[in-house]
Amino acid sequence: MRANNRKHDATRTISIITGVNKYAEGSCLISFGDTKVLCTATIENKVPPFLRNSGSGWITAEYSMLPRATQTRTDRDHTKIHPNGRTVEISRLIGRSLRSVVNLKAMGERQIFIDCDVLQADGGTRTAAITGGYVAMAIAFKKFREMHSPKVEPLLGSISAVSCGIVDGQPRLDLDFEEDFAAHTDANFVMSGDGRIVEIQATAEKNPFTKAELDSMLDLAIKGAAEIQKHQQEAIGE
Amino acid sequence: MRANNRKHDATRTISIITGVNKYAEGSCLISFGDTKVLCTATIENKVPPFLRNSGSGWITAEYSMLPRATQTRTDRDHTKIHPNGRTVEISRLIGRSLRSVVNLKAMGERQIFIDCDVLQADGGTRTAAITGGYVAMAIAFKKFREMHSPKVEPLLGSISAVSCGIVDGQPRLDLDFEEDFAAHTDANFVMSGDGRIVEIQATAEKNPFTKAELDSMLDLAIKGAAEIQKHQQEAIGE
Amino acid sequence: MRANNRKHDATRTISIITGVNKYAEGSCLISFGDTKVLCTATIENKVPPFLRNSGSGWITAEYSMLPRATQTRTDRDHTKIHPNGRTVEISRLIGRSLRSVVNLKAMGERQIFIDCDVLQADGGTRTAAITGGYVAMAIAFKKFREMHSPKVEPLLGSISAVSCGIVDGQPRLDLDFEEDFAAHTDANFVMSGDGRIVEIQATAEKNPFTKAELDSMLDLAIKGAAEIQKHQQEAIGE
Amino acid sequence: MRANNRKHDATRTISIITGVNKYAEGSCLISFGDTKVLCTATIENKVPPFLRNSGSGWITAEYSMLPRATQTRTDRDHTKIHPNGRTVEISRLIGRSLRSVVNLKAMGERQIFIDCDVLQADGGTRTAAITGGYVAMAIAFKKFREMHSPKVEPLLGSISAVSCGIVDGQPRLDLDFEEDFAAHTDANFVMSGDGRIVEIQATAEKNPFTKAELDSMLDLAIKGAAEIQKHQQEAIGE
Amino acid sequence: MRANNRKHDATRTISIITGVNKYAEGSCLISFGDTKVLCTATIENKVPPFLRNSGSGWITAEYSMLPRATQTRTDRDHTKIHPNGRTVEISRLIGRSLRSVVNLKAMGERQIFIDCDVLQADGGTRTAAITGGYVAMAIAFKKFREMHSPKVEPLLGSISAVSCGIVDGQPRLDLDFEEDFAAHTDANFVMSGDGRIVEIQATAEKNPFTKAELDSMLDLAIKGAAEIQKHQQEAIGE
Amino acid sequence: MRANNRKHDATRTISIITGVNKYAEGSCLISFGDTKVLCTATIENKVPPFLRNSGSGWITAEYSMLPRATQTRTDRDHTKIHPNGRTVEISRLIGRSLRSVVNLKAMGERQIFIDCDVLQADGGTRTAAITGGYVAMAIAFKKFREMHSPKVEPLLGSISAVSCGIVDGQPRLDLDFEEDFAAHTDANFVMSGDGRIVEIQATAEKNPFTKAELDSMLDLAIKGAAEIQKHQQEAIGE
Repeated sequence: MRANNRKHDATRTISIITGVNKYAEGSCLISFGDTKVLCTATIENKVPPFLRNSGSGWITAEYSMLPRATQTRTDRDHTKIHPNGRTVEISRLIGRSLRSVVNLKAMGERQIFIDCDVLQADGGTRTAAITGGYVAMAIAFKKFREMHSPKVEPLLGSISAVSCGIVDGQPRLDLDFEEDFAAHTDANFVMSGDGRIVEIQATAEKNPFTKAELDSMLDLAIKGAAEIQKHQQEAIGE
Repeated sequence: MRANNRKHDATRTISIITGVNKYAEGSCLISFGDTKVLCTATIENKVPPFLRNSGSGWITAEYSMLPRATQTRTDRDHTKIHPNGRTVEISRLIGRSLRSVVNLKAMGERQIFIDCDVLQADGGTRTAAITGGYVAMAIAFKKFREMHSPKVEPLLGSISAVSCGIVDGQPRLDLDFEEDFAAHTDANFVMSGDGRIVEIQATAEKNPFTKAELDSMLDLAIKGAAEIQKHQQEAIGE
Repeated sequence: MRANNRKHDATRTISIITGVNKYAEGSCLISFGDTKVLCTATIENKVPPFLRNSGSGWITAEYSMLPRATQTRTDRDHTKIHPNGRTVEISRLIGRSLRSVVNLKAMGERQIFIDCDVLQADGGTRTAAITGGYVAMAIAFKKFREMHSPKVEPLLGSISAVSCGIVDGQPRLDLDFEEDFAAHTDANFVMSGDGRIVEIQATAEKNPFTKAELDSMLDLAIKGAAEIQKHQQEAIGE
Repeated sequence: MRANNRKHDATRTISIITGVNKYAEGSCLISFGDTKVLCTATIENKVPPFLRNSGSGWITAEYSMLPRATQTRTDRDHTKIHPNGRTVEISRLIGRSLRSVVNLKAMGERQIFIDCDVLQADGGTRTAAITGGYVAMAIAFKKFREMHSPKVEPLLGSISAVSCGIVDGQPRLDLDFEEDFAAHTDANFVMSGDGRIVEIQATAEKNPFTKAELDSMLDLAIKGAAEIQKHQQEAIGE
Repeated sequence: MRANNRKHDATRTISIITGVNKYAEGSCLISFGDTKVLCTATIENKVPPFLRNSGSGWITAEYSMLPRATQTRTDRDHTKIHPNGRTVEISRLIGRSLRSVVNLKAMGERQIFIDCDVLQADGGTRTAAITGGYVAMAIAFKKFREMHSPKVEPLLGSISAVSCGIVDGQPRLDLDFEEDFAAHTDANFVMSGDGRIVEIQATAEKNPFTKAELDSMLDLAIKGAAEIQKHQQEAIGE
Repeated sequence: MRANNRKHDATRTISIITGVNKYAEGSCLISFGDTKVLCTATIENKVPPFLRNSGSGWITAEYSMLPRATQTRTDRDHTKIHPNGRTVEISRLIGRSLRSVVNLKAMGERQIFIDCDVLQADGGTRTAAITGGYVAMAIAFKKFREMHSPKVEPLLGSISAVSCGIVDGQPRLDLDFEEDFAAHTDANFVMSGDGRIVEIQATAEKNPFTKAELDSMLDLAIKGAAEIQKHQQEAIGE
């Protein structure tokens, strides 16, 4: 049995509150159950060195956890020599996923920073961050079009993300921290709005998994992503 | 005229919501107007190296701003070689202020981390952080007494903090960002519950100031701190 | 057409030369075509802090490229503030994959470092590093059993890795650098010796991909991994 | 009784020797008793990035202690990840204080670096550094006017600094290390040449302090600063 | 007796294999006995900041050891705050030595990076690196002349390097690790092709040494360098 | 002609003032002409990790320049990612040289830190630092014997250091900054009290040098070191 009598193919309660930061071009506070991530989108009029004079824009994401987002406190990165490997990996995943639905050329030489700060972590922080990061980015693009270029739409589509796992032999959708810990296989899916796949990261935590298990998780992910998208559309106001 | 017709000796709207983090031993979200700081208190059963085998405890504070807490985005510290000098200075001030009302010996060899993360900044972030940090710490000590040592009370008193400034020749209480920018003199006061002074940091931003101006600001601070304390007591539940 | 008239389901020429380092407990120089990775396994009699007094061992991998492994020279990591995100990500992948076939408890409190240094890079460096890292580790375990505990076998199975991609609409096995650059979708598969999946990292480089495309790549990976395993067995001498 | 029968309102022996560095545009070795600080002023023809093309100049101060300036040796900053918080705080205080008496616009796009290296520390190093830093800066401005622009005077006034404290219930001027350690309250005052206040940092080391105690320290500081100014004027040659 | 019945004035077996990297402008794998160093030369069309608009070029060398080049594994530099002092020292020595035979003005504003990565270390790694670094650089210059400026020859001469030591009172040429460890005095000689001295670093490891001992080592070095030069010429193809 | 009509085999005016730091176990301010170095020796009752439980002591040296020791200001090391290579190299040289005359076993598990801070640099800073570092160390050992173990003498001998160079074809002793800049060959000699050699670092700055030139510099160094030793003995009080 899952916590709160949740079915194997049900997500946790999802909520997306927008406009939570008065300065950011786009922002939301997204919750997947007790996982809470504050996402802001910042538009800057300059690009990283490798894009200067290219006419193209860029999307950069930074993922971070507050020290007490977790059960035991984690030291801040700045007190260490190197940032946590996990932090780097997830920041890169979020950025790559968001760029997959943006026409970077249409942005002009601008950069959007997507900051995803985990206020409380209970499993699925990276999928909540991608989902909320997309919402913050879409709102920022709306604002950008209203102010600068109403006819240009850099957004090519939408994305959402959800985790799945095999727990006690059963495929499950949107794992919380306890399930994630117990899972034999753990997979994160980033899905496009039309049901195709943007990224899969599937890892055998205890034993290797089979193609059939992969398929069962992918089926759950497709179902879950479709539901999560509805929350996103409502939040963005489409 | 001040924003929202505020009087020169009035604070902004103050709110303190406790229990905002399900893991921390104490937590609150404190607002001084549009300034919002998330404060958590974490009790750890080990102390910094210089206190090992001393029988004494310690309080450490860490202050940080989310990248888009401010009007324009600030890079995260971990992308720089050294943490921002301002961040270091404020973290040290918070820790020093909180330690002034704690009997460190009575804590035993334990350390409390006070994390103050600014979600949105509109002036007075350090005074909000000290005020909220005290609330989170007091709740953690309550929990600590309930669980471990009901007869020991490491808390010796209370503190709150508020800023003052001379704007257009007029002393004002609890400056917002615009007033802070315009102030000729800027002062932060940390006050004890019995109306004495724990710390003063007063800086001439444009011209040196006089003893009379210092006195006028101190008077406002005493009044403001007394009001802020009522919010703290209500939040802690005393 | 692929370079050297290679078929879409053929790997490049694979070679594994063992014993290339006279100090390491296990070592090999692995080539996937022009990609060359020097892998060494070092057994140390201490474990990371989080495993002290646990009775359990650990496998850590470090992946690195020599500055001129690539077409244009890359600065060494030590000249930068932070290690390259890609380097961190791949090191973590190699370590996680190798740990999936090791009984860490059976190792005792020992750590094996797998160093994978890319001497020349032409696509597929991470899959070559996992494949060669496994060979170096297996040789080190052999040596370890001969010297310390002939009856204990910490190795639970074998792994190999290979990349696949969709290039010009066609699924292809073991991409070289040019194909990797041209691929619409890029996937790395870590496979167990019995044909199950240890890790999938599949990324849409240009457009999202479909379940059918994922399946076609997985089929190629299963075929490729089986071939690569034969090279591994021969190198280890089984 | 104070060391050397010093009265409660007397400074220690103060000496300022100028011209101690043959390369610097201004320099002095300042002693407050056994506290010795070497101060140099360097004029550079470029400003920090945030002032480029602003027409305005800048003053930056860097405070540092030699490893054996103190009773026990302190590791050099470069052997640590982050510079000492105290060092950062004091450097910022010196720079802010010196800028308060400079017309930055009149400097043109030039930067003055004030380096304050503590050769020996016996309390009051920051106040000695501000006092000596002012002397080195004033000498550099003299040289600058002689060479470049005899009619422009960027210096708007003078500053000096001195510490006070409450020791055994008695207010005292210019604490040495032992008194500083014993003080219940510790305050540093930066005063302008006309007797106004540039900065106050007052900290309760043991118990909160009262307004009356603050006033008694401020009175001492005004008296002490006036004396110290005479030493400065003599050293600068006015 | 030396290992392999080597005479006191004989080098170990020396081998230089060129063309070992398909991207580098020049490359070789050099062995002095069991010491193996991979050297690559990279020509870049920009110079360090201090040479911009000077019309002059630069040679930079970077020396590094793979973690398991040595008997026990050494942590990678990027896991430490600061690079190893020894690494910095040797990199500077290699660069300085190579620059001594190059007409930097004739290079134009170009920089050559010489990367010397020690794959296996058994004494004499810095002398092998200088010797192999020269070969890689000479090949890169050949390529450079063929492509850009057949009439310009930036190479002014040749260099090679060899170590000597006093072991058991006897001067010996080209020490291996065990001899290096046992030596009372240890010296590295960088010699020009015409038998003059480019650099001497002679260190008393146990007792000070005499002028006579220095002379006996210098005689060996002159003999050894002449032999090593023949291997270099053969490798470069002159 | 040399500055001040100095002869080719004469040192500059040398002065060594001891007791310049009231906390250090040994200290001196040494001048070689306008080069001034403050040297302190600190005895600590713990050793670096690699010597724990070995019964043996250690000598560590740290060399550093104040920012304005030089004609143009140099940034402090802590503002850079990595310490200056030159700084590392010289610190290692000083430490190695001083250890050559110490019986580390006789020290017990203690470490002496020799801090050499260059207050003003005019050529020969490393040789002044070694010479003054020896004086500070010798005084510290005296104090150590008086307090702890009058019968143990860890000091095995004395060292001093001096630079030589070939300027305009002429060998010269103790180069100042201008001569150092003009020299074709530059050599630093660390000599033992009995006239033997502890370390030679000889570098061809423009052209390779000959054995005859090396000999002429060594002769000067022997003469110069003997003179410098007299200054050391006088300072130490022997």
